[in-house]
Amino acid sequence: MNLDAQWIVGFVDGEGCFHIGINRNTEMSIGYQVLPEFTVVQHQRDVQVLHALKAYFCCGVVRKNHGDRMAYRVRNIEHLYKIIAPFFMEHSLKTKKNIDFRKFRDVLTLMQSNRHLTLDGLEEIRSIKNQMNKCSNMT
Amino acid sequence: MNLDAQWIVGFVDGEGCFHIGINRNTEMSIGYQVLPEFTVVQHQRDVQVLHALKAYFCCGVVRKNHGDRMAYRVRNIEHLYKIIAPFFMEHSLKTKKNIDFRKFRDVLTLMQSNRHLTLDGLEEIRSIKNQMNKCSNMT
Repeated sequence: MNLDAQWIVGFVDGEGCFHIGINRNTEMSIGYQVLPEFTVVQHQRDVQVLHALKAYFCCGVVRKNHGDRMAYRVRNIEHLYKIIAPFFMEHSLKTKKNIDFRKFRDVLTLMQSNRHLTLDGLEEIRSIKNQMNKCSNMT
Repeated sequence: MNLDAQWIVGFVDGEGCFHIGINRNTEMSIGYQVLPEFTVVQHQRDVQVLHALKAYFCCGVVRKNHGDRMAYRVRNIEHLYKIIAPFFMEHSLKTKKNIDFRKFRDVLTLMQSNRHLTLDGLEEIRSIKNQMNKCSNMT
């Protein structure tokens, strides 16, 4: 299955999610880990679409989400910064999800400067995260 | 907002619904009315996308769905048969929703021959409807 860039934008406008996780992690010097994630969740009957997304972007994984739902998921920070973010900069989302994407990208940019490893940077990221809409398909 | 055909296909793969309603209606000679409907439901913050779909197809209406959700809806049988169905025949859906769309189109074709006004035709349509997935966003 070959995907068109505009089809991907439309599908992600409907089904995609840009999420910033901030988890307690005592192994980090500031006690928290920032985990950005791009996901697309589908019923398992359409898992082939998720594999097509993975093939298109050449990164990420397809995994069971919960129940009968599967997820395409990109967590690797380099892949998010160098593949996923440039794609959605070139091909703009048309729904308000574009605002979330821009904030998501702001966090990725801060992480490129290792700002997430400082308390100030973490607070800045937390503030950005709090301005983002919650994804209805996140678990 | 100008929409690209492939963006629409991707968005409808995620958010669209092809639904066949069969309602009791004593004004019909066979006692039932067949009501095909194409809908796309969105949170009201993205109502501009629904208006862009209406402008693209030059048919349908944008109405409140329920709660904070809005719907783009096409119910007119001629518009469904001559505008919506040909669009998705030319631009194939990539998810299993395409199977639903093909069954939906089969019902439209039967209705063009007035088969929905006969008991045999109604049973045929009911049988097709029962093979279709239920839309998660229908109310």
